[in-house]
Amino acid sequence: MARRLDCREADFEASFAALVEERREETHDVRDTVSGIIARVRGEGDAALVDLTRHFDRLELTPATLRVTGEELRAARDACTPEDLRALETAAARIRAFHERQIPKDERWTDAQGVRLGMVWKPIDAVGLYVPGGTAAYPSSVLMNAIPARVAGCRRLVMVAPTPEGRVNPLVLAAAAVAGVDEVYRIGGAQAVAALAYGTSTIRPVDKIVGPGNAWVAEAKRQVFGRVGIDMIAGPSEIVVVADGGNEPAWIAADLLSQAEHDTRAQSILITEDAGFAARVEAEIERRLETLSRGAIAKESWRAHGAVIVVASLEEVPALVDRLAPEHLELAVPDAEAMAARITHAGAIFLGPWTPEVIGDYVGGPNHVLPTSRTARFASGLAVHDFLKRTTLLGCDAASFRALAPAAGRLARAEGLEAHALAVEGRLVE
Amino acid sequence: MARRLDCREADFEASFAALVEERREETHDVRDTVSGIIARVRGEGDAALVDLTRHFDRLELTPATLRVTGEELRAARDACTPEDLRALETAAARIRAFHERQIPKDERWTDAQGVRLGMVWKPIDAVGLYVPGGTAAYPSSVLMNAIPARVAGCRRLVMVAPTPEGRVNPLVLAAAAVAGVDEVYRIGGAQAVAALAYGTSTIRPVDKIVGPGNAWVAEAKRQVFGRVGIDMIAGPSEIVVVADGGNEPAWIAADLLSQAEHDTRAQSILITEDAGFAARVEAEIERRLETLSRGAIAKESWRAHGAVIVVASLEEVPALVDRLAPEHLELAVPDAEAMAARITHAGAIFLGPWTPEVIGDYVGGPNHVLPTSRTARFASGLAVHDFLKRTTLLGCDAASFRALAPAAGRLARAEGLEAHALAVEGRLVE
Repeated sequence: MARRLDCREADFEASFAALVEERREETHDVRDTVSGIIARVRGEGDAALVDLTRHFDRLELTPATLRVTGEELRAARDACTPEDLRALETAAARIRAFHERQIPKDERWTDAQGVRLGMVWKPIDAVGLYVPGGTAAYPSSVLMNAIPARVAGCRRLVMVAPTPEGRVNPLVLAAAAVAGVDEVYRIGGAQAVAALAYGTSTIRPVDKIVGPGNAWVAEAKRQVFGRVGIDMIAGPSEIVVVADGGNEPAWIAADLLSQAEHDTRAQSILITEDAGFAARVEAEIERRLETLSRGAIAKESWRAHGAVIVVASLEEVPALVDRLAPEHLELAVPDAEAMAARITHAGAIFLGPWTPEVIGDYVGGPNHVLPTSRTARFASGLAVHDFLKRTTLLGCDAASFRALAPAAGRLARAEGLEAHALAVEGRLVE
Repeated sequence: MARRLDCREADFEASFAALVEERREETHDVRDTVSGIIARVRGEGDAALVDLTRHFDRLELTPATLRVTGEELRAARDACTPEDLRALETAAARIRAFHERQIPKDERWTDAQGVRLGMVWKPIDAVGLYVPGGTAAYPSSVLMNAIPARVAGCRRLVMVAPTPEGRVNPLVLAAAAVAGVDEVYRIGGAQAVAALAYGTSTIRPVDKIVGPGNAWVAEAKRQVFGRVGIDMIAGPSEIVVVADGGNEPAWIAADLLSQAEHDTRAQSILITEDAGFAARVEAEIERRLETLSRGAIAKESWRAHGAVIVVASLEEVPALVDRLAPEHLELAVPDAEAMAARITHAGAIFLGPWTPEVIGDYVGGPNHVLPTSRTARFASGLAVHDFLKRTTLLGCDAASFRALAPAAGRLARAEGLEAHALAVEGRLVE
């Protein structure tokens, strides 16, 4: 059973604070290993990729076979069932439509002093997308990372995915094709991140790298940050489900388990005002843990990190949720919209009992790459914005320059920057 | 003299590529020192701050005197000249007006399937602003970092600034007051970053830390990233000035020097189609270097990192500029707007000969915290967006759920996530 917190108990605040502070990240010290791998790829290029892939993925490549061919991509697509492909395309269309709403507009204006001002958005040229191998190779993640880049207008979208012993997930390659990925390379780990950041003879470098990965990949992204942009370093997934006693316990149990099955370090939290309902959900979870294919993982997650919080009234929920700042927040309550309006910190909110978080994982439209580990306090889910950058514009004529110059010159002098002051003053004396 | 590159010379591409790849960052290995300081602040709180401030800033504090009082802030303001204060207020008003245009709108809509969708923006609760001590304590930077946070609606804005031997810059404190900073602490270095990230008895923790700093501050920000958000790690400043032969050489020389005087690692690059004009600018720079108060710094910057690029035609400029991806781009050419429209990678663009970059440093309105070291390929200047985060919303009713459920269930099964599939399928059988 997961821990139970009851807001009427004296130790509630202490228990809740402990829950908020609980860290679920693994800390591997892979810093030196990773910096060694990056140095090798920078120094030896393709030869290092071939050698490291032989070592880590037990796969024999040459520079010519690093890249997955168009023929292989078509073959992968043909290996998928029509139903799976249709589901992928449904998901892609909905994700694309949602993200198209995010495209910010350029703005230009002239202010009362006659100064021309503006902000214009431009796409990042080339983006690299890391896709993990093995059981974490999710076609849905390919869509969620690649489509916003495509919508932003990035010119070159490069995917890297390790294929240990040559094994590929056809649906991952199909997702790459559906999302419009331009190049796919069968490499992974820190070596793939290094290749994307620095380039090799075969792989041209990119400007930003996104996508999830293990501790080595995360550390490699940290180390190449600055040379290229990176997205967030994601922690284990989490959900808070707020459900009043009127819900079907089996539905809520299923939603909590869908998070728990991801990872033993995932976290599922139920908040309800109805202790009897909480008990029915817990019983349903216990029952299902026995039969789920990933029951062992889900059980460890639920036992170690799960929690059931019983509140006196749903009025208390927004304050508690904001302290948890969850990645996913499901509001299975009568007026979900009203409660959502009172929440400040959450990556994504799912409104009402007919919106299981799983809909958002695949076909809802909003991105499923979301801030974990309470980072929703300051961070947002992946979006078109992550593949754009903004340039500001400033234009004075002689008159508006003269209006602004005295204040600029004054502040330059106050900061002791004489050359700054002269750049202004020199134009005033002409 | 700075290096000269001429596009008609055979080695131009090699020289230009070397210029693009040149790195000007200092690399101090302060990782272990910084992690030690952070651990001390986490463990000992205020006592560590007092001890480290005694050591690094030669200043004796107590937990009660860590914070700058309201009276001290008022006294600092009174110590400034009315002209300086008016200039600060002019700058603040223009910066505020520009950043108010950046506030993104919430969006809600219902799509053709009846799915409710949305994106809402909320401010980060508490923000910490690092202000360096000594010569780099710029009141303009206080405005540029604090005002966007205030415009975003952050509830709590905390500034830290070291005051070695107790020395304060009154205009920096006045800028904090003008910008609406809520709390000011006289601490700096990695210990100040740690206090902002983890909190002490006296200083409540924040959610995000912004602002420039030395190598120790930058490393501390890197190490607390994840616990809190951080802004970019800024490198040395840089400018590219594109000026045709019709410009006044003295103006362009002044603009190049205003960048060079920042730092010996700063970089100023002139691009022109007129070799004679280039020579006149160079001569003017040499002349001014002899008299400038920061001439020694500017001279080292210009000699080591400056460059003059002579092109055959201004038509070549956009492609060259995009490869440099400069922080600041000044376009002193007849049709600056048309040239700006052809540039993809630049932090901020200054249009026409009456817009010296210095106007943008202080009173233009756009932010002067901008991406350096070619990171304008993937990053943007500081903005209101950096103090907001986005929550996505998804809401299905029974009908729209049934429309989306089959594709979601199919993809969940394809990914081997049974509990995900059951969360969908369980609602279909009811």
